[in-house]
Amino acid sequence: MITVAIIGSGNLATHLIKAFLSSNDVKLIQVVNRTKSNISYLAGDIKITDDIEQLQPADVTIIAISDDAIKDFSKRLNTTSLVVHTSGTISLKALKGDYRKGVFYPLQTMSKDRKVSFKKIPICLETSDEKDLSLLTKLASSISNHTYYLDSDQRKKLHLAAVFANNFVNHMYTQAHEICESNNIPFEILQPLIRETAKKIKTLSPEEAQTGPAARNNSVTIKKQKAQLADDQLAIYTTITNSILKSSQKNHE
Amino acid sequence: MITVAIIGSGNLATHLIKAFLSSNDVKLIQVVNRTKSNISYLAGDIKITDDIEQLQPADVTIIAISDDAIKDFSKRLNTTSLVVHTSGTISLKALKGDYRKGVFYPLQTMSKDRKVSFKKIPICLETSDEKDLSLLTKLASSISNHTYYLDSDQRKKLHLAAVFANNFVNHMYTQAHEICESNNIPFEILQPLIRETAKKIKTLSPEEAQTGPAARNNSVTIKKQKAQLADDQLAIYTTITNSILKSSQKNHE
Repeated sequence: MITVAIIGSGNLATHLIKAFLSSNDVKLIQVVNRTKSNISYLAGDIKITDDIEQLQPADVTIIAISDDAIKDFSKRLNTTSLVVHTSGTISLKALKGDYRKGVFYPLQTMSKDRKVSFKKIPICLETSDEKDLSLLTKLASSISNHTYYLDSDQRKKLHLAAVFANNFVNHMYTQAHEICESNNIPFEILQPLIRETAKKIKTLSPEEAQTGPAARNNSVTIKKQKAQLADDQLAIYTTITNSILKSSQKNHE
Repeated sequence: MITVAIIGSGNLATHLIKAFLSSNDVKLIQVVNRTKSNISYLAGDIKITDDIEQLQPADVTIIAISDDAIKDFSKRLNTTSLVVHTSGTISLKALKGDYRKGVFYPLQTMSKDRKVSFKKIPICLETSDEKDLSLLTKLASSISNHTYYLDSDQRKKLHLAAVFANNFVNHMYTQAHEICESNNIPFEILQPLIRETAKKIKTLSPEEAQTGPAARNNSVTIKKQKAQLADDQLAIYTTITNSILKSSQKNHE
């Protein structure tokens, strides 16, 4: 049984608390948050406090607070625990206290409204001391079937890749949505295409899966489509089309 | 029973032939293709020919050839059929012969390698004569559960929206793939995120689903991430980030 304390009350903290509470291999002993009312819903089940001085010793203490606050906050911790943060962009070295250090980064987009099943969410781990890795792996495996070891630089790059694969992809959906709305086309027509596009790259590389006017170097259609766009949508269309044109040329050389 | 003739042997023609052959409401009576060897695999089951003069009368004749060839080819048809093309970008008016005209456009990305289930593929219909719409709706419903009526301008806009939602999305996957490969990060870590991103917009609008550094107006992270990119990836990052920044500002006003 691994004992865990969690600091924070945001999306990730909330989902982690729920996941650990239903795991048989983990005992969540305490949740700490500076605004106690945000965690008062837990009061019947676990010890809660708004005073970091009251932090109890656990096998692992998880700091699930905003990226910018991690460094300063970490200096205030005085504990015998392995202390981990949960950020994709912050280095392991940002943890500044006198304790064993690690990172516990679940890669997923989490909204409060959507249910999260941790089983399929990859958790990326890092530890300063190699012997802590098995403890952290055990903890991650208690809620997820997919654990990876990445160093701080790889994690930063993964986070950057996720900006393309998630944030930028979603902004493409936004453009498609806008084009549909302003032409009285039900957006639902695009839903099967969107899901097939995401599924396709399970078996094909994205390079192999590329289709469309730019991939076919169809300059007539590209010109016609540009003429239908303005402002940001035209800028996006032009930048991405030029990049696809270059990639396809490279692949055919 | 609706009788159908198909002209063409590309991806879409191949998938349509397969779908109609397994439908009980449709009788595929003939397949025409200028290169007979491409359709010879059908010879046992259906009449095939490479001579357009031999085209047999059917309720619906489907021209499933490349966009650029539709207009010229359509002039050569002499038939009592309802003649439809299958293109997202070509107007109904591109059909030039002396016959009833329509459009039968299935919106999906089709690769020869991937199985296609038409049941979930939206089929967008248009006819020059309103009384042909019920025939075309019946034909579409025989293979798909999702049929829509769109005029030529809407269909053109839908195709443009699909370029964003499919081609451009896939190019974002390509960038994520490249970043992973060049940093020895298994691309599979991103797969659950990619699928969740696509699923999320079934219940949230893409505007509501937007997350990430630009949506949070986190200029520190944006600056750090730009510093890790060059060339096309930097151009894409900058263009899309600027557009997200503007959209988020608009939504918060």
